[in-house]
Amino acid sequence: MNLSRGRQYLATPGPSIIPDQVLRAMQRPAPDIYKGEIVDLTEEIKADISNFAGTHGETAIYISNGHGVWEASLVNLFQPKDKILIVSNGHFGNSWARLAERLNIDVEIMDFGTDVAADPNKIEYRLRSDKLHEIKGLLVVHSDTSTSIKNNLYDIRSSINNAKHPCLFLVDCIASFGCDIVEMDNWGIDVILTSCQKGLMTPPGLAYLIINKKAQNISKKNSNISPYWDWKTRINPELFYMNFFGTAPTHLLYAQHEALKIMKEEGKENIFQRHKKLQQIVTTAVNHWGESGPMKLNVPNEHHRSNAVTTFQAPGHDLNKLREWVEVNLGLTIGVSLGFDSEEYLDGKSVARIGHMGHLNPHMLIGVISSLEIGMTAQNIPHKSFAAEKIYDLLNS
Amino acid sequence: MNLSRGRQYLATPGPSIIPDQVLRAMQRPAPDIYKGEIVDLTEEIKADISNFAGTHGETAIYISNGHGVWEASLVNLFQPKDKILIVSNGHFGNSWARLAERLNIDVEIMDFGTDVAADPNKIEYRLRSDKLHEIKGLLVVHSDTSTSIKNNLYDIRSSINNAKHPCLFLVDCIASFGCDIVEMDNWGIDVILTSCQKGLMTPPGLAYLIINKKAQNISKKNSNISPYWDWKTRINPELFYMNFFGTAPTHLLYAQHEALKIMKEEGKENIFQRHKKLQQIVTTAVNHWGESGPMKLNVPNEHHRSNAVTTFQAPGHDLNKLREWVEVNLGLTIGVSLGFDSEEYLDGKSVARIGHMGHLNPHMLIGVISSLEIGMTAQNIPHKSFAAEKIYDLLNS
Amino acid sequence: MNLSRGRQYLATPGPSIIPDQVLRAMQRPAPDIYKGEIVDLTEEIKADISNFAGTHGETAIYISNGHGVWEASLVNLFQPKDKILIVSNGHFGNSWARLAERLNIDVEIMDFGTDVAADPNKIEYRLRSDKLHEIKGLLVVHSDTSTSIKNNLYDIRSSINNAKHPCLFLVDCIASFGCDIVEMDNWGIDVILTSCQKGLMTPPGLAYLIINKKAQNISKKNSNISPYWDWKTRINPELFYMNFFGTAPTHLLYAQHEALKIMKEEGKENIFQRHKKLQQIVTTAVNHWGESGPMKLNVPNEHHRSNAVTTFQAPGHDLNKLREWVEVNLGLTIGVSLGFDSEEYLDGKSVARIGHMGHLNPHMLIGVISSLEIGMTAQNIPHKSFAAEKIYDLLNS
Amino acid sequence: MNLSRGRQYLATPGPSIIPDQVLRAMQRPAPDIYKGEIVDLTEEIKADISNFAGTHGETAIYISNGHGVWEASLVNLFQPKDKILIVSNGHFGNSWARLAERLNIDVEIMDFGTDVAADPNKIEYRLRSDKLHEIKGLLVVHSDTSTSIKNNLYDIRSSINNAKHPCLFLVDCIASFGCDIVEMDNWGIDVILTSCQKGLMTPPGLAYLIINKKAQNISKKNSNISPYWDWKTRINPELFYMNFFGTAPTHLLYAQHEALKIMKEEGKENIFQRHKKLQQIVTTAVNHWGESGPMKLNVPNEHHRSNAVTTFQAPGHDLNKLREWVEVNLGLTIGVSLGFDSEEYLDGKSVARIGHMGHLNPHMLIGVISSLEIGMTAQNIPHKSFAAEKIYDLLNS
Repeated sequence: MNLSRGRQYLATPGPSIIPDQVLRAMQRPAPDIYKGEIVDLTEEIKADISNFAGTHGETAIYISNGHGVWEASLVNLFQPKDKILIVSNGHFGNSWARLAERLNIDVEIMDFGTDVAADPNKIEYRLRSDKLHEIKGLLVVHSDTSTSIKNNLYDIRSSINNAKHPCLFLVDCIASFGCDIVEMDNWGIDVILTSCQKGLMTPPGLAYLIINKKAQNISKKNSNISPYWDWKTRINPELFYMNFFGTAPTHLLYAQHEALKIMKEEGKENIFQRHKKLQQIVTTAVNHWGESGPMKLNVPNEHHRSNAVTTFQAPGHDLNKLREWVEVNLGLTIGVSLGFDSEEYLDGKSVARIGHMGHLNPHMLIGVISSLEIGMTAQNIPHKSFAAEKIYDLLNS
Repeated sequence: MNLSRGRQYLATPGPSIIPDQVLRAMQRPAPDIYKGEIVDLTEEIKADISNFAGTHGETAIYISNGHGVWEASLVNLFQPKDKILIVSNGHFGNSWARLAERLNIDVEIMDFGTDVAADPNKIEYRLRSDKLHEIKGLLVVHSDTSTSIKNNLYDIRSSINNAKHPCLFLVDCIASFGCDIVEMDNWGIDVILTSCQKGLMTPPGLAYLIINKKAQNISKKNSNISPYWDWKTRINPELFYMNFFGTAPTHLLYAQHEALKIMKEEGKENIFQRHKKLQQIVTTAVNHWGESGPMKLNVPNEHHRSNAVTTFQAPGHDLNKLREWVEVNLGLTIGVSLGFDSEEYLDGKSVARIGHMGHLNPHMLIGVISSLEIGMTAQNIPHKSFAAEKIYDLLNS
Repeated sequence: MNLSRGRQYLATPGPSIIPDQVLRAMQRPAPDIYKGEIVDLTEEIKADISNFAGTHGETAIYISNGHGVWEASLVNLFQPKDKILIVSNGHFGNSWARLAERLNIDVEIMDFGTDVAADPNKIEYRLRSDKLHEIKGLLVVHSDTSTSIKNNLYDIRSSINNAKHPCLFLVDCIASFGCDIVEMDNWGIDVILTSCQKGLMTPPGLAYLIINKKAQNISKKNSNISPYWDWKTRINPELFYMNFFGTAPTHLLYAQHEALKIMKEEGKENIFQRHKKLQQIVTTAVNHWGESGPMKLNVPNEHHRSNAVTTFQAPGHDLNKLREWVEVNLGLTIGVSLGFDSEEYLDGKSVARIGHMGHLNPHMLIGVISSLEIGMTAQNIPHKSFAAEKIYDLLNS
Repeated sequence: MNLSRGRQYLATPGPSIIPDQVLRAMQRPAPDIYKGEIVDLTEEIKADISNFAGTHGETAIYISNGHGVWEASLVNLFQPKDKILIVSNGHFGNSWARLAERLNIDVEIMDFGTDVAADPNKIEYRLRSDKLHEIKGLLVVHSDTSTSIKNNLYDIRSSINNAKHPCLFLVDCIASFGCDIVEMDNWGIDVILTSCQKGLMTPPGLAYLIINKKAQNISKKNSNISPYWDWKTRINPELFYMNFFGTAPTHLLYAQHEALKIMKEEGKENIFQRHKKLQQIVTTAVNHWGESGPMKLNVPNEHHRSNAVTTFQAPGHDLNKLREWVEVNLGLTIGVSLGFDSEEYLDGKSVARIGHMGHLNPHMLIGVISSLEIGMTAQNIPHKSFAAEKIYDLLNS
C-alpha cells in the first residue's frame, strides 16, 4: 500500500512554501512593460525591500538567483587583484569565496568552522593587522543555510569600527531576510544581498542588492563593471526597462509584490518574533531528542542559531535513510546536508536540515517534528521521544 | 505575538483539501457549452462515478449540494404519503428524514442512537412485520458525518433479502464516497447519493445520484417529478444541456474531472486501504489519549467506524475551547460537533470531529494529532500523551 | 495548415468571458464553512445583487443554473392548478412555461412572436378581462437570449396597474442582469430571477432570486414548498449553512464576490451605458451588412433590443456553415440559433447570435464583426462590407 | 462613459500572450530542487529548445532576460580587445554592440540601416578583407524587433564560407524563435540566443544559449569567464543546481515546459507556416492602408520581413496619439517605436509596431487591424480602409 498521496510537505530550507495568494498573483496576462501598474509595483517592491532591510539605501532587482547577486555585488565593487576577506562558517561562505576567486579577486577566507558564529575579536585583530588597508571588503553570510549558523552583524561592525578599517561591509542575507532581523543602516552594512525564494516567499528567479551611498560611490570609480550586473541604472533608471537591463520579469514581480503585501500586513516586528519562536520549536525538539540518543543541533550556542533553518546531526547514523523513510511513508521532505562532506559526517549522511522560513505556523512544524520521531523509530535512531510536550511551554514563554 | 500565519490547516470533515491540480483545472475560460471537450469530459465523469460506486448503473449529475440530491432522490422515487423507513445514527440521517417529511412522505425513523451502526436484525424484523409492503424505501446514511458511524450495507441488504421485502434501498454515501468501499451492484443498492466536496476532492457545487435499473423503472411511473430534479433526461440526455437541465457547471466539471484522474491514478483499492490506515491513525491516537483522561472515540466498535471522519468526545470538557486554542495559536482547524445538542454533551461542546477524506497522507494527520496534544495541555484536558508512538506500529501492521 | 491556435474567442451569449481576476479568486483552499470570511462575503454578495437590481428586497442564492431558479420561483409562489400568464417572445419564455406546466400549474402563454417586444396594451387587456383575478402571476423574460428581444418592464408594470390587477410580477433577468438596467422597486417587480454566468461574469453554478415583501408574504401561505427551493431560510438564515440549505458553494462564491467587486468599481451607470454601446456596435454592423444582402437583425425595432445579445438572420442562408468556417479558420465562435426550428428559418440554420455581456470592450466586438465579414465572403453570403466604418461615429455619438 | 473594460488586448512585440495552460502550470508549490520531476523537466526543456533550433548542439538555460544572454554569449567566447563584427539593422543590433563595447570588446558595426536586410555580399567583402582573421565573431540579430527586419542567415553563412573566414557565427533569435524557421546546424550557426517571453510564450525570466561544438571548444580556451555566465557547467552539470549555477527557477520552468508541450503538439512546420500567414495578414493590411495615405511598412521587401513583428510608419503623423486612442477607447494596445529617434520619424512618433508571436490566430489580428482603422479615422490619418477584405484571399492562398 502506498500512503504518500496528499500534499507533500517540503521542510527544506528553500524554495520555501509559497502562499496561495502569491501564486494567484501570477495568474494574469503579460502587461505592457512600458507603463502602468508594473511600473508602480516595481517601485513599491524596491522601497519595501529597502524598508525591510532597515535602510535608506537603494534596492536593485536582478533577474537571477542568489549566486547571481553574489557575482553582481563583487563585480560592482571590486576589481581583479583587489583583496577581500570572507568570513566563512559553512558551504555558502566558501562558495561565495570560490566565486570571487574565479573573478580573480584576491580572497582571504577566515574559516570559523561549521558550528559557531564568527568571532568578532578575531576579525578585529585581522583588520587591525591590515595597516595598509589592502582589504577592500569584508564579506559575511548572515545565516549560512548549510550550517544554520547566524553571525552577529552588529558585533562584526563594531570590530570594523574598532579597527578603524575603511573596508566595505557586505552581507549575504539570502537565507535570513524576512526571518532574522537586520538593521542595515544602524549596523553599518554597505551592501545586503538577498533573493526572493526564502523568507520573501516568491517562486525563485529574483535577487536583490540593497546598497548604501558609500558602496554606490565606490562603485562609480569602477570602470570595468559588466553591463548586466552594473547596478547604477538599476538603482536610478531613466526608463523602466533599465530597472532590469531589458525585459521586466513581470510575473515574478506580481508574485513578489503580493508576498510583500502579506509581510507588511503582519509587520516586521511580528515576523521576526514569529520566526524566532518557530526556530525555538525546532531546536527545542532536537535538543529533546538528544537527551537519549545521538541527535544534536549543529549549533550548540543558542545565540548563534539562525531563525530560518536548523541543521542537526546524528553522528554515526545515516539520516538520508530517515529522509527517505518519512518522504515515502509519511509525505514529508526534509533538507539534505550541504558542505559536511567528510568522514566525520559520513560524507554528509549524518546531517540534515529543516527550513522554517516564511509562510509557516506552529502546526506545520509540529507535524514535521512528530513525523520525524516516527521516522527515527522506523530507522532505529535512538532518541528521547515526544518532543511536542516541550512546545506548549515554549509557546507560553 | 501572533503565530497564526502560514497555511491554516483545515481538518474538518469537508469541504476537504483540494489538490492543486484540481484548483488549476478551473483556471480557464468558459468553453462552448454545446460541443467539444466539455461534452466528453462530462461523459467520463459519469462513467467514473459509476465505476467508483461499483455499478453498471447510471450517474446523474446535479448542480447542488448534498441536500439537493437528498431531495432529488426522494422526488424521483416517492410520492406524498408513500411510506419510507430511514435508518438513523446521526444528524444527517435525521435531517434527511425531516426533509422527506416536508415532501409529505410518510417517514418512519429507526433510530440506532449515535454510537453504533444500525442493527441489521432489527431492520429485518421491521421489514418482515411490513407484510403489506407499505414501506417503499429503506434509506441509510453510509457514514454519518456527525457521529462517524459507518453502517454495514452488505448486512442491511441481507436483511432486506431475508425479509423478502421489495423496498428500494437508497444509500447516502456523501461522506463515505472515495473513502470507504461501496459495491453498489454486489450489495444490491438501488440508489447511491454523493457529492463532490469530500472524498471526490472538488470545490462544492456538484452532487450525484447513481441509479440502477430497478430505481429507474420505478421512477418512470411517477408522474409528479419536478423538472429540475427529474433524473430521466440527466441520465439519457438527447442534448448535452439536458445533463444539467440547463447551463452546464463548466468549471466544477473541469475540477471534478481532474480529481477523478488523480483517483484513477491511485486506484480504487489503494484509495480505500489508505483511508482505512488514515482512520486508524486518528482512532489510535484518540484511544491512546483516553488511557489517562476523558478523551474517547464516539464509536466504540472499530467495525462501525467511518474511514472518512472521526468523532470524539471528552465528557465534561469544552472542546470548543480546544478548537479555538489550536486554531489561533497553532494554525489548525478541526470540526465542530453536529447533532449532539443535549446536556450530556454540554450541547455539543464536548464533541469534536476530524476529517480524513481525500487528499491526505500520514504526515498531515500526525501534525493534527500532535497539535491537539499541545492544545489539550493548554486547555488542561487530561490525556495520555504522545500518541504518535503508536503510529509506527500501525503503519507497519 | 491549421491556423486555429491562440485564444479561441467565444462570442456566444453565455457563459460569458470570465475576468482573470475572477478565475484567480478560486485559487484557494476550501475554507471553514461555519465562520469567517466566507460568511461576510456571502452577505456582501446578497446585498450587492439586491443593489444592482435596484431593490430593498432580499436575495436568495441557489446552487443551480437558471432553470433551477425558474423552478424555485414557481414552487415558492404557486400551487398546482394556480393560473399564471407567461409573456413569451422566444425559446426561454416558452421553456419556462413548459417547466411550469410540469409543475401542474395552469399556464396561459401570451405569445408575441420572435421579433417584437410584448405589447403592454394586450397584456392590460388580458388582465382587465380576468375579473375574478384568477391569474396569480405574470411572468416575463426581460431579454430572451434566443431572440434578443428586450421587453419593456416599466410599461408592463403600468399595464398591471392600469388593470388594477393584484397578480405577482416575476421577471427572468438571467440574460439581462448587469447588461440592461432594471429598477425592481421603481418598476414594481415582485421577483427577479438571475444567474451568475452572464452579466455577472462568474463560472456557472449559482443562481439568484431577488424577492420583495409582497412575494415573501404570499410565499408564507404556501405550505407545499419543497425544502431545497424554499427561499425562507435562504433569505433569513439562522445559521450560515441555511443560506444554501447545506454546504456552501465556496469557490463560486469567491468568484462571484470578485466579479461584483469589478462591477462596483465600474459603477452601475457606466455598466449599463457601456453595454448599450456594445449592443449598438453589433446591431449597427448587422444593419450595415444588410444594406446589400440578406443579413438582418432579428429585432427590427431598436427599442426592443437587448443590450446583452444580438440575434441576426440571413434568410435562405446556412449560418451554421459561417459559424464553422470562422471557428476553424479564424478562431472565433459565435452562438447557435435557439428556438427557430421552422422551415422559414431552415430549422434554425439561418439564425445566429452574438453575445455582448460582461467583460467586454469595443476592440473585442470589432474583431468579431470583421471576422464575420471575412467569413461571409468565404461562405458567399452577400453583404455590404466594412461595417467598422460606422463604429467611429457610433462611439462618438 | 468609459468603454475600456474587458480583456485589454496587448499587440506589442513581447512579452507575448501567455496561454492559460502555461499560466496554470505555475499554480503549484515549490518542489524539491534536488531530485524528481523538476530534473526531468529541465532536461526535456533543454532538448526541446535544441530541437526547435534544428541542432544537435547543447542548450544552456539562464535565469535572466535577453540582455543577459547577450552578455553571456560574449563573455564565454570573447576577451577584451577581441574584434567582432556586428551586423545591425535596428535598435537591438546596436544595443548588443554597445553592450559588447562595455565589455571592452573591439566592436565594428556594419550598419545596414533600418529598412532592409543585411547584404551578404557586403559581409563577404568585409570578411575577405580581414586577411589576418582578426574578426573573431560575426554577430547578427535574426529579426530585429525594432525594425521588423529579418536577415537571411543562410546567405550570411554562405558569405562566411565564401570568404573562407573562421569567425564564429552568433545569432540573436530572441524575437524570431518559434516564429521564423531557423536551422542552426544546416545554416552553420555556432551560437543561438533566445529568451522565453516571445515565441516561447512563457512569462519573462528565462533566456537560452544554444551552442555547437565549435563554440564550446573555443570557450574552453577562455580563462576569464565570469562564473554566472560560464556555460560549461550549465551544459554538462554534474549536479542539478549547476544547470542554473544556484537555485532553479522552478515556476518559470514549469511554465516553459508547458509552452513547449503546446508547441510540440502543433509541430514545428505548422508553427512557422502559421506565423508566416499571421505576418502576411498584418503586412497586407498596412499595404492596403497605404494605397490612400501615409501608412507604409517599414520593410519594403517582403523577403526581409520578420514573421514575429511588423513595424510600420505614417510619415508626418503622430502614431502615439493613435496608440493612445485605441488603448483608451477600444481596449487595444500596440507597440511603441524603438530606435527611430530622429526628426525624420518625429522622434519615433511616426512609427509603431504590432507583435504577432506565439499564441495567436487570425481572429485576434483581424480585431487589431479593424480597430486600428477606426483609430485612424478618429485621428484623421488618411488611409484606404477595409483591409479585412484582402484577408480572405490571403487565407486561401
